[in-house]
Amino acid sequence: MSENDTLKYRVDDGIAFITINRPEKLNAFTPKMARDFIGLLDRTDADDDVKAVIVTGEGRAFCAGADLEGGSDTFADISGEDAVVNEDGSLNYAAESIRDIGGLVTLRIFRSLKPIIAAINGAAVGVGVTMTLPMDIRLGTDKTRAGFVFARRAIVPEAASSYFLPRIVGISRALEWSYSGRLVPARELKEGGLLREIYAEDELIPAAVAIARELIDNCAPVSIALIRQMLWQGLNMQHPMEAHRLDSRAVAWRGRSNDAREGIDSFLEKRPPRFTDKVSKDMPDFFPWVDEPPYQ
Amino acid sequence: MSENDTLKYRVDDGIAFITINRPEKLNAFTPKMARDFIGLLDRTDADDDVKAVIVTGEGRAFCAGADLEGGSDTFADISGEDAVVNEDGSLNYAAESIRDIGGLVTLRIFRSLKPIIAAINGAAVGVGVTMTLPMDIRLGTDKTRAGFVFARRAIVPEAASSYFLPRIVGISRALEWSYSGRLVPARELKEGGLLREIYAEDELIPAAVAIARELIDNCAPVSIALIRQMLWQGLNMQHPMEAHRLDSRAVAWRGRSNDAREGIDSFLEKRPPRFTDKVSKDMPDFFPWVDEPPYQ
Amino acid sequence: MSENDTLKYRVDDGIAFITINRPEKLNAFTPKMARDFIGLLDRTDADDDVKAVIVTGEGRAFCAGADLEGGSDTFADISGEDAVVNEDGSLNYAAESIRDIGGLVTLRIFRSLKPIIAAINGAAVGVGVTMTLPMDIRLGTDKTRAGFVFARRAIVPEAASSYFLPRIVGISRALEWSYSGRLVPARELKEGGLLREIYAEDELIPAAVAIARELIDNCAPVSIALIRQMLWQGLNMQHPMEAHRLDSRAVAWRGRSNDAREGIDSFLEKRPPRFTDKVSKDMPDFFPWVDEPPYQ
Repeated sequence: MSENDTLKYRVDDGIAFITINRPEKLNAFTPKMARDFIGLLDRTDADDDVKAVIVTGEGRAFCAGADLEGGSDTFADISGEDAVVNEDGSLNYAAESIRDIGGLVTLRIFRSLKPIIAAINGAAVGVGVTMTLPMDIRLGTDKTRAGFVFARRAIVPEAASSYFLPRIVGISRALEWSYSGRLVPARELKEGGLLREIYAEDELIPAAVAIARELIDNCAPVSIALIRQMLWQGLNMQHPMEAHRLDSRAVAWRGRSNDAREGIDSFLEKRPPRFTDKVSKDMPDFFPWVDEPPYQ
Repeated sequence: MSENDTLKYRVDDGIAFITINRPEKLNAFTPKMARDFIGLLDRTDADDDVKAVIVTGEGRAFCAGADLEGGSDTFADISGEDAVVNEDGSLNYAAESIRDIGGLVTLRIFRSLKPIIAAINGAAVGVGVTMTLPMDIRLGTDKTRAGFVFARRAIVPEAASSYFLPRIVGISRALEWSYSGRLVPARELKEGGLLREIYAEDELIPAAVAIARELIDNCAPVSIALIRQMLWQGLNMQHPMEAHRLDSRAVAWRGRSNDAREGIDSFLEKRPPRFTDKVSKDMPDFFPWVDEPPYQ
Repeated sequence: MSENDTLKYRVDDGIAFITINRPEKLNAFTPKMARDFIGLLDRTDADDDVKAVIVTGEGRAFCAGADLEGGSDTFADISGEDAVVNEDGSLNYAAESIRDIGGLVTLRIFRSLKPIIAAINGAAVGVGVTMTLPMDIRLGTDKTRAGFVFARRAIVPEAASSYFLPRIVGISRALEWSYSGRLVPARELKEGGLLREIYAEDELIPAAVAIARELIDNCAPVSIALIRQMLWQGLNMQHPMEAHRLDSRAVAWRGRSNDAREGIDSFLEKRPPRFTDKVSKDMPDFFPWVDEPPYQ
């Protein structure tokens, strides 16, 4: 296990565990935590021994949102006052330093090559919940609750959640949750599709591990990496032809791989597969097929 | 309270009530009603005392759809025969007068700066239901039912509902409801996500008021206006980077506001906030960040 | 009834029945079956006596997916090795012959002018389930189960399902089902919105017929054809203005039709309508309003 100020990291039998580790502050989110989280995803993507990632919180909260210890100017300070104010006092929206740090995290998650399961063990407030939206599967307990509290702090939804939230829970729930800023209980989160399932507290991590285990034991890692990118980017497509172009290429490329032969052979021989292609070196020659648009 | 031919309007403690008021015609929709409705939304947007809007129907129906009193030629007449037929007899689709009036209403609702709650007190048929789709939250009673009857009248879905309906209830339900043209009962509307909740008749308006009350008492009006635009436009985005660009700007702008300082201070001091920024004059300098595309 | 190697076809009282007919192979999918299926949809679109299409499988499976009889090289062979490998050994992704045949089928379904109901009578695996995604309504039985098994075979989702699946069942379920490759049971398919309803085995086809019957008996065929195109393409729209442009044109065109007058008259006279406009010759002059993008 390695440690930094705010996050614990360990890899166990194919699964990377990232644990938000400021329990005395209810795991409140800081700029350093954001940078560390992004660094850990660079590590999980590069490490072929990591087949899936589980994110959870230490203690009773998942993440209580932006750390407000700085007081009234927290949201002004976050974006670095000096760098972003022009001489005439207007804001320089083009400045890299004005970019919302929650969005830097969610855009990095969006690009992840490894599946990410959020085990939301308690309260997830503000960026504490919006950071989970581009994760793949969210699980909770009876103690889980989520607060889209932005209007109560007089700011706005961040971490690119205006893209993610209505796609995940529908526009009507996204609006009502964001208008009220109330803490939404676990049952309502599940009804809205934000939580996949609700578990007893001591069953949460085992349930996340079981989901990870099933894909690790049965599926080709390169396929999993491609599926993650294809399905998330599928939401951006404007016509099924875009998907057809992409999957024609991907089936043609993967169909010639040793893994694909092993996939068919193991199925016909009714035995577990032994896949050997690696995400670090066996992704298709046309990957990535789209680049992240520039900030400006 | 002010009156016009077809709509009643009053503002009470931050909430504007718009009541469709042709109970003897089951609130059937007319071109004049459409224009009046658009005019009222110009008024709710401009009036800082209005923090939320509730739309309901007088009597036992919400809105029975287009008024068919004109008989067989109703749908031909609606688009103004003279103006739109070219000399060669073909239709001039570029003519402003050919624009569907239901769509003029729903595009105006789409731009609203105030949250709109539909209290659907009875039957909502044709434009009577499609006009509610860009409203934010739809509530009903056991008497609520919705009819996407367009194929039974041999026309097509209107009011831009081919955009809204599949996004709200999913493509499969949108198709089945529109293919059959049957009256869909309240329970099925709730299962499909068209209704947020079903109430007893005398609890419908109080429930709508309670939802409005929660946001009025706790949230900053400028944040609410921004949230409405951000989340609805989030459905139009083709990449989360678009949301990131937008929320980086909005957090930077709002983070420097007095309201944001009050939001943090009131939270840390565990007291209700006193927000003072107004939608009429304190929207960000980059608002609106997108223009409505031209009709042509 | 007409027969070919793999599909049965008959038309009965306005409904075309397409039955996948390789029960001894669990209706495993072949390139010839794909071509035959596309040919049958050309036929249902051209035949004004066909008002709706029901697709089902003969025997106990709906479709067990790609026929793996060819062994390890099945997925390499599918895309025609000779035609698509350049001299330097790289793949020629521009080659028409590299196009995924499942995608050819689903793109053809996407363009269908007649509503398509999938009566999924048993297992639907791989392309066996992805081919149903652009169908309009999917019904099942307690025996229905679906397997997005692509990662277990070390390939990727095909048939343009990266476009369709997250739109139909949500991104989180789409990912989890595709990551695991497990057989998802009927109840979970219904919860996720993939199945509209679950029936007893002997009630499946009658239920599909009842849905078809309701639209045939009450609705104008030209309206149904337009609704199908409008709602599916609604998912591709980036602003409600696109829907408004389209439905303004369509209401103006259809509002002048004899069918529209009959729609209003029959409603006012409280009698069943007698619609006479035909899909083969009475579609609007602006149809089709968008072309399928080219593969390249």
